[in-house]
Amino acid sequence: MHAAAYSTSTPSVVPELLAEYGARAREAMLRFLPDREPRRYLYDLVDDYPKRGGRMMRPTLCIASARAHGATIEQALHCAVSVELLHNALLVVDDIQDGSEERRGRPSLHQEHGIPIALNVGSTMTVLSLVPLLQSVTTNGPFVALRVFNEAVRTAQACAEGQALELGWRRDNRLDITELDYLRMVTRKTCSYTTIFPIHIGALVGSRRPEIDPALLRYAHLLGTAFQIQDDLLNLEGEHERYGKELAGDIYEGKRTLLTIALLERGSAEQRRVATAVLGKPREHKTAEEVATLVAWIRELGCIEHARRFAQNLLGAARLELDRYASQLVPSRDRDFLYGVIPWVIEQV
Amino acid sequence: MHAAAYSTSTPSVVPELLAEYGARAREAMLRFLPDREPRRYLYDLVDDYPKRGGRMMRPTLCIASARAHGATIEQALHCAVSVELLHNALLVVDDIQDGSEERRGRPSLHQEHGIPIALNVGSTMTVLSLVPLLQSVTTNGPFVALRVFNEAVRTAQACAEGQALELGWRRDNRLDITELDYLRMVTRKTCSYTTIFPIHIGALVGSRRPEIDPALLRYAHLLGTAFQIQDDLLNLEGEHERYGKELAGDIYEGKRTLLTIALLERGSAEQRRVATAVLGKPREHKTAEEVATLVAWIRELGCIEHARRFAQNLLGAARLELDRYASQLVPSRDRDFLYGVIPWVIEQV
Repeated sequence: MHAAAYSTSTPSVVPELLAEYGARAREAMLRFLPDREPRRYLYDLVDDYPKRGGRMMRPTLCIASARAHGATIEQALHCAVSVELLHNALLVVDDIQDGSEERRGRPSLHQEHGIPIALNVGSTMTVLSLVPLLQSVTTNGPFVALRVFNEAVRTAQACAEGQALELGWRRDNRLDITELDYLRMVTRKTCSYTTIFPIHIGALVGSRRPEIDPALLRYAHLLGTAFQIQDDLLNLEGEHERYGKELAGDIYEGKRTLLTIALLERGSAEQRRVATAVLGKPREHKTAEEVATLVAWIRELGCIEHARRFAQNLLGAARLELDRYASQLVPSRDRDFLYGVIPWVIEQV
Repeated sequence: MHAAAYSTSTPSVVPELLAEYGARAREAMLRFLPDREPRRYLYDLVDDYPKRGGRMMRPTLCIASARAHGATIEQALHCAVSVELLHNALLVVDDIQDGSEERRGRPSLHQEHGIPIALNVGSTMTVLSLVPLLQSVTTNGPFVALRVFNEAVRTAQACAEGQALELGWRRDNRLDITELDYLRMVTRKTCSYTTIFPIHIGALVGSRRPEIDPALLRYAHLLGTAFQIQDDLLNLEGEHERYGKELAGDIYEGKRTLLTIALLERGSAEQRRVATAVLGKPREHKTAEEVATLVAWIRELGCIEHARRFAQNLLGAARLELDRYASQLVPSRDRDFLYGVIPWVIEQV
């Protein structure tokens, strides 16, 4: 097995490729975005979130997967642009649905332009994310392009299914949500577009095979689940500067996460009663004090440690799946990257 | 030229094919929609607008165009389902953006389920509208399927561009919007998916040619513009029972239509001042009396007659374009339908 396989801290190849492939994908994305009318009410706003930055994890995963399967960066670039655009589209729409106030350190799009226009921008970005895949017919041929297209549509549908569960649980302030329910929701809401889609279409483009060995997709799935749990942790524990969203936003938004599920499971009857009441209030009725109380209980009841261990176990399983698959990958920095993101998910250095 | 070409009232083939093809398309659409979890927060709601009815004009145009170009109904059915689903998706999202209270005689989806969940249903339906086109690879082959796909993505983008203009003009209460601006907006917001997309992809599937003679697309464009103007008229003049939306909703929503543009052009300085103030208010601050005043002025100033004549002239031009193209169509009920919808747009019997 390759040396990078067993590093327990993030190898330097991860920040290197995030910078290198990320820059290529960002440049291609900004070049791709329409520069034409209607600017003021549409295309100037389509550019907004993409120009705010982002670590480019998803397009980098896509390019690394494609190259590790034998493609050139040029053959993967259409897919990488599509992946990053879909991500940005989902951010715009999620921010509306969650009533989020900040994104990447600035007011969210609907705060600046109103819900109707922001919503239209989000729909436009979703549609635009498909256009590079149509263009990829010329580089990858109609058969690979149709397979990639198929995955794009399935991915968007999976995201919507996951989002439906999260929004429904929250609206109805559901108390019967288990860890298993959470994992099923995250598979669709997060893993689908964050890890499975980029890694899968990279493999389709690189290998040109019609079917991909499920071990690779299980790796992507486990990686994505750990990523979401870590995201939930950062939402409570992160530095605001780096995170670019309000702290404890998930509690304000009443989301079901591994942390709130553990709080409801582990808390006393009185703690459960209070937590349920607070989670169920509309965000504008929640006080900072109430939210701080829930965060303190989450800490005291060991929910943070539980979620950390959970993510680490998932990443251990992800590593085993990648070991199973690794002989099908070209030995390269790209293969090292696929191993290296495993510790990175927790360290995110 | 075929006898149906010069009928000035709607020939019976129009209601016949709307019923016949409409039933086939509706049945195929409802069979296509996912019957699986998550039901309560997603797929039960995806069914909602489609099950409320609708006249099935768009899928019927699609099937008639395909058959008039030599396809079977089975070859066109995937496309017809896609067209009708996209239409329903746009209705869900538009109702949120417009703050519309009713749709097809019942409360709009976001009134019943809240904005976040309704918005997610709209996004899901947009994505689902692409799935039948992916499935059409098996009936129509990869090359026709990719062309149709391309048109679907272009159409969704055009809709969003038109929507951006309408929403932006309204938000900023723009007074400088001319008839030409309106026509450009309607080309994208309405014609793109209502007439051009169904007729175009029907022709692609039926003819299997890579390019379609622009005369057919001009016919579709003119037909769609007249359809939107007639829709604006029905919004003021229609019977509520049949129309299924609140009367004068466009005024409540502050929309720019041929009618409000003519009111601002033709009114006295005082009428312009009042009309501008009323149009610019949020809908919940508009009184029924204020709206009734604007409607009365629109009548008195001849704006209704002006819009009617405008639509009739467009339909005359549509007929000329279809005459130019008609030799490329199979003489059939389908060709008669394409002629017959011209008077139908105004009569809608």
